[in-house]
Amino acid sequence: MTDTNALGQQQAAPLGVAVVGAGYWGPNLVRNFQSSPHFRLRWLCDLDVERARKVLGGYSTVQATADYAAVLADPEVDAVAVATPAGTHLDVALAAVRAGKHVLVEKPLAATYADGAVLVAEAEERGVTLMCDHTYCYTPAVGRIRELVHAGELGEVHFVDSVRINLGLVQKDIDVMWDLAPHDLSILDFILPEGVEPVAVAAHGADPIGAGQACVAYLTLQLSSGAIAHVHVNWLSPTKVRTTMVGGSKRTLIWDDLNPAQRVALFDRGVDLATPQELGVHERRSMQISYRTGDMIAPALPEKEALRSMVDEFAGAITEGRAPLTDGRAGLRVLDILEAASRSLEFKGAVVGLRTGH
Amino acid sequence: MTDTNALGQQQAAPLGVAVVGAGYWGPNLVRNFQSSPHFRLRWLCDLDVERARKVLGGYSTVQATADYAAVLADPEVDAVAVATPAGTHLDVALAAVRAGKHVLVEKPLAATYADGAVLVAEAEERGVTLMCDHTYCYTPAVGRIRELVHAGELGEVHFVDSVRINLGLVQKDIDVMWDLAPHDLSILDFILPEGVEPVAVAAHGADPIGAGQACVAYLTLQLSSGAIAHVHVNWLSPTKVRTTMVGGSKRTLIWDDLNPAQRVALFDRGVDLATPQELGVHERRSMQISYRTGDMIAPALPEKEALRSMVDEFAGAITEGRAPLTDGRAGLRVLDILEAASRSLEFKGAVVGLRTGH
Amino acid sequence: MTDTNALGQQQAAPLGVAVVGAGYWGPNLVRNFQSSPHFRLRWLCDLDVERARKVLGGYSTVQATADYAAVLADPEVDAVAVATPAGTHLDVALAAVRAGKHVLVEKPLAATYADGAVLVAEAEERGVTLMCDHTYCYTPAVGRIRELVHAGELGEVHFVDSVRINLGLVQKDIDVMWDLAPHDLSILDFILPEGVEPVAVAAHGADPIGAGQACVAYLTLQLSSGAIAHVHVNWLSPTKVRTTMVGGSKRTLIWDDLNPAQRVALFDRGVDLATPQELGVHERRSMQISYRTGDMIAPALPEKEALRSMVDEFAGAITEGRAPLTDGRAGLRVLDILEAASRSLEFKGAVVGLRTGH
Amino acid sequence: MTDTNALGQQQAAPLGVAVVGAGYWGPNLVRNFQSSPHFRLRWLCDLDVERARKVLGGYSTVQATADYAAVLADPEVDAVAVATPAGTHLDVALAAVRAGKHVLVEKPLAATYADGAVLVAEAEERGVTLMCDHTYCYTPAVGRIRELVHAGELGEVHFVDSVRINLGLVQKDIDVMWDLAPHDLSILDFILPEGVEPVAVAAHGADPIGAGQACVAYLTLQLSSGAIAHVHVNWLSPTKVRTTMVGGSKRTLIWDDLNPAQRVALFDRGVDLATPQELGVHERRSMQISYRTGDMIAPALPEKEALRSMVDEFAGAITEGRAPLTDGRAGLRVLDILEAASRSLEFKGAVVGLRTGH
Repeated sequence: MTDTNALGQQQAAPLGVAVVGAGYWGPNLVRNFQSSPHFRLRWLCDLDVERARKVLGGYSTVQATADYAAVLADPEVDAVAVATPAGTHLDVALAAVRAGKHVLVEKPLAATYADGAVLVAEAEERGVTLMCDHTYCYTPAVGRIRELVHAGELGEVHFVDSVRINLGLVQKDIDVMWDLAPHDLSILDFILPEGVEPVAVAAHGADPIGAGQACVAYLTLQLSSGAIAHVHVNWLSPTKVRTTMVGGSKRTLIWDDLNPAQRVALFDRGVDLATPQELGVHERRSMQISYRTGDMIAPALPEKEALRSMVDEFAGAITEGRAPLTDGRAGLRVLDILEAASRSLEFKGAVVGLRTGH
Repeated sequence: MTDTNALGQQQAAPLGVAVVGAGYWGPNLVRNFQSSPHFRLRWLCDLDVERARKVLGGYSTVQATADYAAVLADPEVDAVAVATPAGTHLDVALAAVRAGKHVLVEKPLAATYADGAVLVAEAEERGVTLMCDHTYCYTPAVGRIRELVHAGELGEVHFVDSVRINLGLVQKDIDVMWDLAPHDLSILDFILPEGVEPVAVAAHGADPIGAGQACVAYLTLQLSSGAIAHVHVNWLSPTKVRTTMVGGSKRTLIWDDLNPAQRVALFDRGVDLATPQELGVHERRSMQISYRTGDMIAPALPEKEALRSMVDEFAGAITEGRAPLTDGRAGLRVLDILEAASRSLEFKGAVVGLRTGH
Repeated sequence: MTDTNALGQQQAAPLGVAVVGAGYWGPNLVRNFQSSPHFRLRWLCDLDVERARKVLGGYSTVQATADYAAVLADPEVDAVAVATPAGTHLDVALAAVRAGKHVLVEKPLAATYADGAVLVAEAEERGVTLMCDHTYCYTPAVGRIRELVHAGELGEVHFVDSVRINLGLVQKDIDVMWDLAPHDLSILDFILPEGVEPVAVAAHGADPIGAGQACVAYLTLQLSSGAIAHVHVNWLSPTKVRTTMVGGSKRTLIWDDLNPAQRVALFDRGVDLATPQELGVHERRSMQISYRTGDMIAPALPEKEALRSMVDEFAGAITEGRAPLTDGRAGLRVLDILEAASRSLEFKGAVVGLRTGH
Repeated sequence: MTDTNALGQQQAAPLGVAVVGAGYWGPNLVRNFQSSPHFRLRWLCDLDVERARKVLGGYSTVQATADYAAVLADPEVDAVAVATPAGTHLDVALAAVRAGKHVLVEKPLAATYADGAVLVAEAEERGVTLMCDHTYCYTPAVGRIRELVHAGELGEVHFVDSVRINLGLVQKDIDVMWDLAPHDLSILDFILPEGVEPVAVAAHGADPIGAGQACVAYLTLQLSSGAIAHVHVNWLSPTKVRTTMVGGSKRTLIWDDLNPAQRVALFDRGVDLATPQELGVHERRSMQISYRTGDMIAPALPEKEALRSMVDEFAGAITEGRAPLTDGRAGLRVLDILEAASRSLEFKGAVVGLRTGH
């Protein structure tokens, strides 16, 4: 993966990459791999080779194929990006890992936690990079939120409230939770400070249109710090909302992904208790509450496309031999919550505990 | 309550009214009773008579008093409006009912369902009007929503999602649910079509600032039709949100109370299933889903103040001897949900069934 | 106007005040004088005494009258607030000034510059306070904007762009410019830094509905600094817009009066020229332009009602014997621009110079 | 341009096209010609061939060249799209026309009205299609506005108010008016009903940053119907605004290009005069004015990219041998207004008449 140039310096040659799956997400990967100097796109592979050809268009030098084995056999292919349906992630990604390729998998990492765990174990054993395409984590907004939280600018995280609703494509095989909540859960996983993690989840849902799947769902997560996180996903909303509020002891921020002029707003507003922690319950009842109603700051954010940053991170992780920001284990943690939430849905909202120590 | 004018026609003399409680809400009642031709405000009563005087201001002919007995003894007082803390509603309102006065009670009707039931029973026995001040039900927006739902313009109600969050006054004795959710629950009670009612509730909450009360809460209600309703109330949000979405099989509407230019928006957008109900599970998997993405209509709404309409309804109910739109039983139904939600909160989100047949 | 209390300390007794005019604006003055500790409202005077009674309502101890002479003869009346039609301002206000009363006049100060000048001269001669009710100057937002501009936080003012449009009450005797632009022009007068003033105006208008008056108008003002100010007023807009942008060499701010959550937004964004001023024209063509795209700050603002602050300022000016913030001369400067704009309108947009040295 | 397929039916072969200019706009044309089935992109031509290569990227089969003569000599090139700086439009486009190619020119059509007229005359003489890329006219929103206006849904057009402001790229050779107003003027030209056209313009501007060009400008247009149109363009605004209001005697619409959820809003609100037209001036003073405050409708709009529709229209005009919707004459009319506005700017806002009968 490195060349030696005229001056004898080593410089990175682009990584050969193949995209598998020419459906909804594949074309975005194709476009971003093509515009990245770190990659050379060699193949677009789909069972339906015509679909792959159509995605590439009439002016491309990239090869379309339906023959995945040929892709894996190509020594110029260093990495494979999997954008096939979730049910096939294990097979497709595992084959790539076993062929010694670095692998990027579209969210969710796999159809089940068990499948995902197999992938993670195999990739670790083989020493190849396994990355989960948690795209939103690579938006400038989420990056800044992570920085603000980790730097303590918000104080302790008190609550996280996320809404992701729109008139969605009702899916046949997965419900709204598995379709949309991976975004919110991966963001939550990404921004929470060290040591704070979800420990239990309860989910409520409904299928009012008779789709055979929940089309509206509410997830409530208990965090290890005692804080609460809540996710509202909905395929039936006539308007699109993409808002996350992160409430902290010092400041609270609101991320509105659909407001390009003001994606992140940081509020110096909140409720403070003047009561020292030592006071007893009765004294605390008569506590002094004070309110901050300070300024709001909307930080300037760069306009870089998230997928481009994600693709760069994939290259960086491969080249530097390190775990990517959203590695297989991040994908596993999201799967754990999704599975627990599904169980909760089955049991009418019962609280379900999460695995820990991923 | 009626006079005979010069032409021998009977015409309504204004109803004598007293307001009890000069705290947060009382001044609004004072202002609205004064501007209504249906009422003659006679007293403002508060244990702290100075506070009552201050509310009336230096130019008023209305009497301030701390002597509630004198108010009840005044034969010119036909009606009493109770705006004291919830814990005192039973005593104050019951005394008025027993004195033969018509009674308006600020939400919630009483501190407990049992207290509320006593009030309702006593008022029915005495034949006096008992009305609960569910103010939002009297906004032009909610009135229109009720009309639209009842006229079938939305089709079957599929889901209701309500958000009521802001930097709120953290209370010592009641949590955010008892403070804010009565608004959403009374609106829900008001707009749901005949035969559809909540049957169970689950509540999740958190007290991240250590206030001794939940400051963030999420309520999920199961409706008798299989639909879902959800309420998010929060005292810690730096921005104010007051939005309710009512999703229906034909149309979906969004009420944004903070957008005066477009309070109600009716969307002809949604997801339709082309599959006949007769098909089996397997056929439904391959169902034809279609999407409507039609126009949005924001109906013109009058600008009448809700409290003024509420006060007019109180007068109408008294004069016509009929139940007000938001009668004591409506107040009871809200109390039932609040109590069940509190139990659910205690039991970490367990689903709690509701009484029926109020 | 001062009393001596039990401890021998002098303390201000409230100023006796009368409001003249019970039409559109009068009730607001009545309400605010009543709630101010600095004033004692004695009279509401209107040619139509029934209208005055209606405004006071059925519970007031304030006297309604149609007899303006009696009001002026009342020695308890220290000040008179004039809220009659603009055409009568001169007569009503002059009579009050000549009776030795302090006078507050609703905008515009008078129907003509000449009338206004008479008023100002007479008030100065008599030594009474003459204040113009430029209400918007007393909003917390405009107060903050003035502070920011005067403190140099924006740098040099480059442009001011003001939009004040809505479905307005088409007037019979004044056009949209005289109805709405006084707000924008008085704000401009209030916020501009020392030494910067309008020197010429051009106005374009249209009367597309045949109302006999311009219903849409655009004013362009040339400022003495070379900057530009522009005002768009419109009675025919289906939506309400109230926005003013103040562009500066260092920062630019936007005031949106209809966005209570974010009335003032201060942007650290703009275009900078790196070229030193010494360079010749040709070099400047190849100048280095750089762009700042920094954070936005929305300062926290108090929620005080503007009219209340205005009434307090009136009291302060009277008590301290000083010119109020928006004195008669401020009213004159606005009249000067309005008259010049009317001439420009007549002459199809010709630029008309303004008087200077008011 | 037509083939005969296996069934003997003629079907259109794609038109060979070359894009000239690989700067700001060229890449958008490249992308859209490539994705259109009506075109086959053969060349991207730029004096800087490296820039052209970069735009095409490393996966393209399209040829990059700096040799414009070779492009024009290629018989497979049916059409040329010109995206070079405005000052070169005449030379580049004229050469293409003379080589018998159909020509698409980026706005403005040419640097001067005279240049544009030469182009139009030459194209008409040669019988080739000359189209001006007035992109906004091909947005679904503007298309719908044109339909609504032409169908009489707004009644008579009373006023048009357009705001196009943002932190813009300050140009060395053209001012903000020539940079941004072509959009608004071409839209105006596109949507105005038959028989209504601009007859005069006045322009006011400022260069507060010393850029050597107006950075803020206001254009007021008098329409032949007596209506008014106004355009505000500004390079110094920290926020982006793209709003056009079209006021009519029956309805008024607002187009907000930055609000994807509600781009066009049609308001049944306005001011009506009940006065018959026969009444004299004095009677009209006492006219009955009434206000409509009806519903607002936000029509559903397709999400088609404007440039794609523009490219399709170019193909349609060529194939059908008809004038495109935005032909050279539309480009000329816009140039006429821009030149007159520049003269007005020079003369401090003097009203300048327009040519008629283009």
